[in-house]
Amino acid sequence: MRVLTESDIEDIALGAAVLGTGGGGDPYIGMLMARRAIQDYGPVELHTLEELEDDDLIVPTAMMGAPTVMIEKMPNGNDIINAFRTVGKFLGRPVKATMSIEAGGLNSVIPIYVAARERIPMIDCDGMGRAFPELQMVTHTLYDISSTPFAMSDERGNTVLMETVSNEWTETFARGVTVNMGAMSMIALYAASIKSLKEAAIPGTMSKAQTIGRTIRSARQNEEDPVNTVRESVGGFLIFKGKISDVERRTEAGFAKGDAFLDGIGDYQGQRLQLSFQNEHLVARVEGEFKVTVPDLIVLLDLDTGEPITTEAMRYGYRVALIAIPCDPKWRTKKGLELVGPRFFGYDVDYVPVEARYRS
Amino acid sequence: MRVLTESDIEDIALGAAVLGTGGGGDPYIGMLMARRAIQDYGPVELHTLEELEDDDLIVPTAMMGAPTVMIEKMPNGNDIINAFRTVGKFLGRPVKATMSIEAGGLNSVIPIYVAARERIPMIDCDGMGRAFPELQMVTHTLYDISSTPFAMSDERGNTVLMETVSNEWTETFARGVTVNMGAMSMIALYAASIKSLKEAAIPGTMSKAQTIGRTIRSARQNEEDPVNTVRESVGGFLIFKGKISDVERRTEAGFAKGDAFLDGIGDYQGQRLQLSFQNEHLVARVEGEFKVTVPDLIVLLDLDTGEPITTEAMRYGYRVALIAIPCDPKWRTKKGLELVGPRFFGYDVDYVPVEARYRS
Repeated sequence: MRVLTESDIEDIALGAAVLGTGGGGDPYIGMLMARRAIQDYGPVELHTLEELEDDDLIVPTAMMGAPTVMIEKMPNGNDIINAFRTVGKFLGRPVKATMSIEAGGLNSVIPIYVAARERIPMIDCDGMGRAFPELQMVTHTLYDISSTPFAMSDERGNTVLMETVSNEWTETFARGVTVNMGAMSMIALYAASIKSLKEAAIPGTMSKAQTIGRTIRSARQNEEDPVNTVRESVGGFLIFKGKISDVERRTEAGFAKGDAFLDGIGDYQGQRLQLSFQNEHLVARVEGEFKVTVPDLIVLLDLDTGEPITTEAMRYGYRVALIAIPCDPKWRTKKGLELVGPRFFGYDVDYVPVEARYRS
Repeated sequence: MRVLTESDIEDIALGAAVLGTGGGGDPYIGMLMARRAIQDYGPVELHTLEELEDDDLIVPTAMMGAPTVMIEKMPNGNDIINAFRTVGKFLGRPVKATMSIEAGGLNSVIPIYVAARERIPMIDCDGMGRAFPELQMVTHTLYDISSTPFAMSDERGNTVLMETVSNEWTETFARGVTVNMGAMSMIALYAASIKSLKEAAIPGTMSKAQTIGRTIRSARQNEEDPVNTVRESVGGFLIFKGKISDVERRTEAGFAKGDAFLDGIGDYQGQRLQLSFQNEHLVARVEGEFKVTVPDLIVLLDLDTGEPITTEAMRYGYRVALIAIPCDPKWRTKKGLELVGPRFFGYDVDYVPVEARYRS
C-alpha cells in the first residue's frame, strides 16, 4: 500500500496516456480532476491485489464516449459517483475499492477521484493494460466476468442501470445512451471479487503508468532524447518518425474514427504512414503494408518532448515518433485475438506480434 | 370488480385499437397474447380506481417501439414480466396492480397478460385515453408523476433500468435502447399510488374500449352501417370517406412516420385527404387545410366492417372512413397542449377542438 501524492497522479495520468494508445482521455483533464479530489476529500491509497481479501468486492469506474467531446465538456464529478453508488446499491454489498478498467489519461485517474470522494482504496491493476474502444474489450470478458450490473450517469442527474446477457449487448445499449447523454457518460461496471481479479485483471498498470510518466518528466529535465528514453522504459519499438500531414476524422455511432497520415522524416524520408483509429490507434500501414496492429500498443509521441499525443489532439504539422509496445500476453491468446485482434476491427490481416517484426 | 372473459378481452383489444388512433399495436397480436395468459395462468380481475386502497402501488406495463415491427416479432412474455418485476424490486414495495398506460390494440391488453401471470388485478384506467407516440405524453406528466424508475426488457433477457430528471429524458434514452433491442421493447413505468392516479389517470378507458369493441362486433352481426354505429358509440364526427391511394412510410429514430393519401368517395368525391402519422395519426388535411389535429383522436375505420385500421396496416385500395373523437379534457389545458398539441409535432397551427369544426 502507498499513498498517492499529487505528483504521483500527474505521472500516472501522463504515463497512462502513453498506454492509452491515443485514447482513454486527455491526461490534463484527468489530472485536474484527480488533483481536485485529493485536495477536497483527502489522500488516496493505492493497494495491490494481494493487499485485499479474496471476497472483497471491487467496482471499476471510467468515462465512456468519443474523446473528441471530452475536451469541451469536463465531467462534474457527481455523475461518476452516482454511477458507482448505483452498482453498489444494486448488489446490496459494500464496495471495498475501485480500479481503472483501462489505462488512459482520463480513465486511469477517474478511479482516483472516486476513491478520494468515497474514501476507499484504488487497486493497482486494470482490465486492458492499454485502452480499447469498446466495453467488452477487457480481460474480464476473457474470464467470463459480466460487465453488468452496469451503471451510467450524466451531469444532469440521469442514471441508467442495465443487466445484459453479454458484454457485447452492454456495449450496444451503453453506446447509444452515451450518444444521447451528449457523447459522454460516466460508468461503473465489471464488479468483481479480488479473487477473480487475481486471475482476470492485469496487475500493476498504475505503477507502470507512473514509471512511464516519471521517465517522460525526467527525460525532459535532463535533456535526453525523450522518445528513445520512453521507448526503452516501456520495452517498445520505434516504427516511424514523421510529420502529421493530414488527419481525417468522423464521429460515427459514438466513436471518434479516422486516419492520420505521417510524412516520414530522417531515416523515414519519402515514406508515408497511415495511422487508423477508433478512439484508440488500431493499425499503422506504410504503402498498404501493416507495420503494427491491435492488440499491440501503437503510441504517438511528440518528437521533442516525448509526450503522448491523443487521437483527438493530432494536428497538422506535429513532428512525431510512432512507437509500438507489446500487449499483455492475455490478448495474444485465441480468445483474446477474437475479441480485439485486427480482424474484429475489419482489417483482413492476421495479428503478428510487434517483436516478430522489429528488434528493439 | 369484474372478471374478464376471453370475449371481453377480444372486445377490449378491438375497441382499444379505435382509441389507439392508428397506434398502440395490432389488436390481433394483443388478443392472442392476453388470451394465452388467461388460459395458462387463470382469470384477471378488472378493478376501478375506487376499489383499491389509496396507498396501493400501481405499475403500468406496455410495449414500446415502431408498430411496423411488432407484426413480425411477437413478444415472448418473459420480457414484460422482467420489466415489471424490475420496477417493483427497485422500489422495494409490493406492486398491487398493473394498468394500461395507453389505449391501443396491444397496449391495452399487455397489462392483462401481466395481471394474469402475476395474479394481480388490472385497473380500469389509462394515461392517455388514446395512444401517443412518445413516453412523456401521458396525463401522469401533467401531474408531475415521474416515468422512472423505468424498466425495459427484450426477449433475449436484457434489462435496462433508468432514473431520469424528466420524462423527456426517459423518452430519449428509452427510444435509443428500443432501437438497439430490435425496434421493440417491453416496458414498465410511471409507478404511482392509487391516490395520485385518482387525480392523474383517465378512468374507465378499458370499459370504454370494451363497449366500442362490442359495438363493432354487433354492428357487423346485425348488418347495420358499422361506421355510423361506431361513430355514434364514441361520440365522434365523420370527417371523410375515401380510398387509400398512397402510403409513404419511413422509420425514423425508432418511429414509424409517414403520410397516407385518401381519394374521396361519395360526398367527398374530388377531394384528397392527407393523413400524417408518427406511430399514431397526428393531423388530417384537405388541400392543406387542417380538418382535425392532435390531441383529438383521428381514427381510420374500414368502411365495410367498421374495424379500426392501424397505421402499419394501411394499404393501397382500402375503402375507409375517417372519424374524429374529442380527446379527454386534460389534453385541452395549456399544459396538455404544450405536451401533445399540433405545434409539438411541428405543425404550425393552433389546436381547434373537433366539435368546434364539425357537428355530430
